[in-house]
Amino acid sequence: MGEAPVRIGLLGCGTVGAALAQLIVDESDDIRARTGLVLQVARVGVRDLTKDRGPLFDASVLTTDVASIVTDPDIDIVVEVMGGIHPTKELILDALKAGKPVITANKELLAHEGPDVFAAAEAASVDLLFEAAVAGGIPLVRPMRESLLGERVEVILGIVNGTTNYILTRMTEAGASYADALAEAQAHGYAEADPTADVEGLDAAAKIAILASIAFGVQVTADDVHHEGITRITADDIAYARRKGHVIKLVAVAERAGPGVADGIAVRVHPVLLPTTHPLASVRESFNAVFVQGRAVGDLMFYGRGAGGEPTASAVLGDLIDAATNQRQGSSASLGVLGTATISSIDDLEAEYYVSLDVVDQPGVLAAVAGAFGAHGISISSMEQEGRGDGARLVFVTHVARERAVRATLAELEQLDAVALIGSVIRVLPTEVSS
Amino acid sequence: MGEAPVRIGLLGCGTVGAALAQLIVDESDDIRARTGLVLQVARVGVRDLTKDRGPLFDASVLTTDVASIVTDPDIDIVVEVMGGIHPTKELILDALKAGKPVITANKELLAHEGPDVFAAAEAASVDLLFEAAVAGGIPLVRPMRESLLGERVEVILGIVNGTTNYILTRMTEAGASYADALAEAQAHGYAEADPTADVEGLDAAAKIAILASIAFGVQVTADDVHHEGITRITADDIAYARRKGHVIKLVAVAERAGPGVADGIAVRVHPVLLPTTHPLASVRESFNAVFVQGRAVGDLMFYGRGAGGEPTASAVLGDLIDAATNQRQGSSASLGVLGTATISSIDDLEAEYYVSLDVVDQPGVLAAVAGAFGAHGISISSMEQEGRGDGARLVFVTHVARERAVRATLAELEQLDAVALIGSVIRVLPTEVSS
Repeated sequence: MGEAPVRIGLLGCGTVGAALAQLIVDESDDIRARTGLVLQVARVGVRDLTKDRGPLFDASVLTTDVASIVTDPDIDIVVEVMGGIHPTKELILDALKAGKPVITANKELLAHEGPDVFAAAEAASVDLLFEAAVAGGIPLVRPMRESLLGERVEVILGIVNGTTNYILTRMTEAGASYADALAEAQAHGYAEADPTADVEGLDAAAKIAILASIAFGVQVTADDVHHEGITRITADDIAYARRKGHVIKLVAVAERAGPGVADGIAVRVHPVLLPTTHPLASVRESFNAVFVQGRAVGDLMFYGRGAGGEPTASAVLGDLIDAATNQRQGSSASLGVLGTATISSIDDLEAEYYVSLDVVDQPGVLAAVAGAFGAHGISISSMEQEGRGDGARLVFVTHVARERAVRATLAELEQLDAVALIGSVIRVLPTEVSS
Repeated sequence: MGEAPVRIGLLGCGTVGAALAQLIVDESDDIRARTGLVLQVARVGVRDLTKDRGPLFDASVLTTDVASIVTDPDIDIVVEVMGGIHPTKELILDALKAGKPVITANKELLAHEGPDVFAAAEAASVDLLFEAAVAGGIPLVRPMRESLLGERVEVILGIVNGTTNYILTRMTEAGASYADALAEAQAHGYAEADPTADVEGLDAAAKIAILASIAFGVQVTADDVHHEGITRITADDIAYARRKGHVIKLVAVAERAGPGVADGIAVRVHPVLLPTTHPLASVRESFNAVFVQGRAVGDLMFYGRGAGGEPTASAVLGDLIDAATNQRQGSSASLGVLGTATISSIDDLEAEYYVSLDVVDQPGVLAAVAGAFGAHGISISSMEQEGRGDGARLVFVTHVARERAVRATLAELEQLDAVALIGSVIRVLPTEVSS
């Protein structure tokens, strides 16, 4: 076992970077005993040299010249936790070209520039590991890349955004309104002052793009992902779901499209009604979980903390030990060459739909509304009316219908005088992935 | 990418072996496209050459001379799915000595002879992979060995036996008795005609021994594991648990012992009362799940099919691709050198206990029973009496108490005339692992 330390160049030193540096110190004896590796944070690229970083770093390892780290011949492995797309991408490409393994926790970068970065790692035959970029501390990327490499993954269904899962949990368990639950999430630090990226599904879209790339071996970027958020979900929707033995969760979905769409895959983020017996239904608070269906392996689920400094640093550390071990053995992990993806349009999605409408309670309303569904070939599985008079609300659940037809129906419903407001439109999880 | 096939020697061709051979054929195009590997089942060791194995194998690859496979210079990788301890152990040791990576799904072997086999792999610097030996298709061993190598795992809590989980699920959801639920499990093929290994916790004990070895980097064998089964659990116990917001699950536990037990670990299998909000509580039917608490990463859970030909074969295939990739790169995975474990005695366990007693309903009974607890320093958290007269039943839940004191109390209770029967004694999951 080599005793020469593995010299790490750390790009960025925020919450995750500092937690990682601390973990490397705390676990150094165990890591050395079990792997023979001595990890050393040799250089740290920061924006501000004057910031107090406690006793963890000697001032001499800090530099604002981040670019010099990735080409420093004394640096063995680069860890990128600075975030952003530029100049981060260029720094990572330079590091890979210089033959240095790169560990990154940067989901935006991989979701938008993944194909370039993956190809650069492949060309250089150098490790590019990114466990922390998808689901924080949950070991998910390595199992997908390695354990399931011979498995035909059919569906991935993930709760990969802790903020929205926290909000929906509070709405479900405490009967909170969306606005109150969001405020609570902000007070706990689970949601940003501007929560857009979380509540509109953008964060989840980035993560499912990365997961789909690994699972299906094709190039998928965040731009390929249809996304809808949770801002229109009401306490009424949640109460209805509960009465029917369901919960509402924001899920990121990647699946192989059905017959007729050769090589196609579907990737999207939206709320779903999920039976309470589904493994994802009991994922509460800010936890994340990813449910995977494979042809041979059946149902799998991976559960844990999708964010936070320490869980994320734990994932980075796992990658770091892996990359250092590979480097010592002269080997590297490969993603293979990613093919081109054919992305199935959301218009072609087939699902059951929950549709809630505020209507004027007068004779003939139901006939008019039902007529609109029927005119587009959509049959109704159940209908309930709640309340009377001006506050009346109709809730429909359709049989399996095509998204395109549902949208056409909604456009028609909008024109009806009796329909005051189209409320939530939520897909119901198809039973074949309800386990 | 090398085009020479990876020649696999398959030891045993039962359910898992046949499913693996089929998977290798079905997924060959995908595996080749993504890894460049061409997998070929070159020789198959069987007991009976005359058995019809369908069109999957050419007769020429079958042999009863199993020992010749592991030393055959034309075999690149050995897959052991024959089971048993002897001569399987000797075959695996011979394969490792011959420099051949070994994939095994054999939990009995690893749980009883693990230290020898792990040491042989380490000495030969050859892969010994065994994802399928612990939790069937669930990617668990690789994440534990690799992703969490830098993580200080504090507690592992696993539902790792599908038979008992199925029985307990039926008792919980359908109100079935233990006997009826067992009969149902047998009818579904989830339980053997002789269910002892499952229902007495032996199967789970073997699995947690392997998991503890990996997680803590020490030698743990099945003999180190205190185990109790589910045969004495009654519908009354389950009903009580449900009223209190709990479920009863058979769990396999491995944890670092508390202060005062240097380097010690505790490994055991027994039923627990688990709050319904715990992630393991919603693991239903014959599914398995392993809950892990790490110092930095927090709570994790891995969920899926713990048994069955196809899920198990999927795990073997993942290992096979890993070993073949490593072999191509001239590298290998290492478990490190396993230290000696100090196993904490079950007598020193501290937990809350659920104790159910059938008593004669007469004045003074409660005082006598409560007195026995008090005499051993155990304080009572709650008591309920169910029924009257001769069928009366007392249910106690204690505050945290030491196992040794609980056993002494039970011995004393057994001597009381008023106590007709000591029913179930079930540990309550300590709140610190209730997440």
